[in-house]
Amino acid sequence: MERNESISALLNAGDYNLLPSLSVDCVIFGFHENQLKVLLLKHRHLEMWALPGGFIGKEEPTDAAAYRVLKERTGMNEIFLEQFYVFGELDRYQKEFHMQDLKKDGIDVNEDLWILQRFVTIGYYALVEFSKVNPTSDILNEKCTWWDINKIPALILDHRKILDKALATLRMHLNYQPIGYNLLPEKFTMPEFQKLYETILDKKLDRRNFQRKMLGFQILHRLKETKKGVAHKAPYLYSFNLKKYNNALNEGLNVGW
Amino acid sequence: MERNESISALLNAGDYNLLPSLSVDCVIFGFHENQLKVLLLKHRHLEMWALPGGFIGKEEPTDAAAYRVLKERTGMNEIFLEQFYVFGELDRYQKEFHMQDLKKDGIDVNEDLWILQRFVTIGYYALVEFSKVNPTSDILNEKCTWWDINKIPALILDHRKILDKALATLRMHLNYQPIGYNLLPEKFTMPEFQKLYETILDKKLDRRNFQRKMLGFQILHRLKETKKGVAHKAPYLYSFNLKKYNNALNEGLNVGW
Repeated sequence: MERNESISALLNAGDYNLLPSLSVDCVIFGFHENQLKVLLLKHRHLEMWALPGGFIGKEEPTDAAAYRVLKERTGMNEIFLEQFYVFGELDRYQKEFHMQDLKKDGIDVNEDLWILQRFVTIGYYALVEFSKVNPTSDILNEKCTWWDINKIPALILDHRKILDKALATLRMHLNYQPIGYNLLPEKFTMPEFQKLYETILDKKLDRRNFQRKMLGFQILHRLKETKKGVAHKAPYLYSFNLKKYNNALNEGLNVGW
Repeated sequence: MERNESISALLNAGDYNLLPSLSVDCVIFGFHENQLKVLLLKHRHLEMWALPGGFIGKEEPTDAAAYRVLKERTGMNEIFLEQFYVFGELDRYQKEFHMQDLKKDGIDVNEDLWILQRFVTIGYYALVEFSKVNPTSDILNEKCTWWDINKIPALILDHRKILDKALATLRMHLNYQPIGYNLLPEKFTMPEFQKLYETILDKKLDRRNFQRKMLGFQILHRLKETKKGVAHKAPYLYSFNLKKYNNALNEGLNVGW
């Protein structure tokens, strides 16, 4: 199906299949070669990029809509997903912006069309294992790729604000939630684990203090094997103790109090 | 105006004045006599209570809708308000529940009416100074009063779930945000401040450790005066250093890392 036919099909179906006024937008973080990455979509007409997002079915829970978007863009089912903020300002939705886009697609629409009305969007952030993702575009965009968090291109509408808030929230959450299970490979060294924290927090951490805390939380198994291909003093490999890791996620790590 | 006339007016106005599918619900916390309290509304027909809530105007930002509800229920303008979660499950809205209510009001409605459709609600929690609140009901309820967090009555729909999530979030936030400015009187002692934390966290804290941390954050001014009416060793009074307090709120206290 041609793109403009797919878009027309969406425009026709939306009015009775989709919940009005509400959408989801997903900030999908991955970790690769000691860099924090975000998955973005290239706009079909503009030299701008967008967060993966979508609408919510009339009979679809909001979280299920976010999982569906993630599955479609990454190919993955098991993803750590967290709702983090609702963006409900009046200036976030720009009718003219979307009308222009549709005109370039050769689609003329009435300004009463559902997709041109005000939308409040629910922001979700996801943590995924970079190597397992198969980035896939949607019909409103022309490609889907990873971007380094320090080199984010121009984003449409308020998507930069949504991305920044997701990163700030992720950093806050490190104060009481463990992180790493969906970002690191199955086996990793303590320096690799520390590097993940340092990359997200964008600062150096004390090596001994980090190791002491992490071992204290009891969320790690130290494996019998060591890292191969390292010249001397090969570092231990670790994996997550998933039961304790999930307990810590649910109950909070109580780092502060 | 009679209640059922007011309700009819709301039902008639909603379709073109209000954003479809979306509402706000507010968990309003106060602190009084060493107890954490929540402001609830008594349902007009049932022996059940509800969180203060409301709809969102078509031209109203979502946060403004929450501030409006808070102003109407408490009489207060300056309130610490934080969006904490979106409740978007399918089973949260029950058409029959609302149709029955309206029938008891003597109002027969068509099941296509906007208010009977699925609503996703944005949860906000607020922290208010108990003594300044003037609890005021809305037209769908018959009174508005404070309830001790440990003695919450039966709540309608999923309001208990919303309340529990708000409390869990508030506790999490204590790991990286200061609290107290909107909950304590202007001047307070260190034991009063500690008691607030202990009440919210529902556990005892070490006195020295608490004082050391709090003074370390530099969010307090120690006043020259001491607490009056105390027999001997009158404790110092403190007030918040609002500039540093607000900095800590915005940047995070970094209690963990």
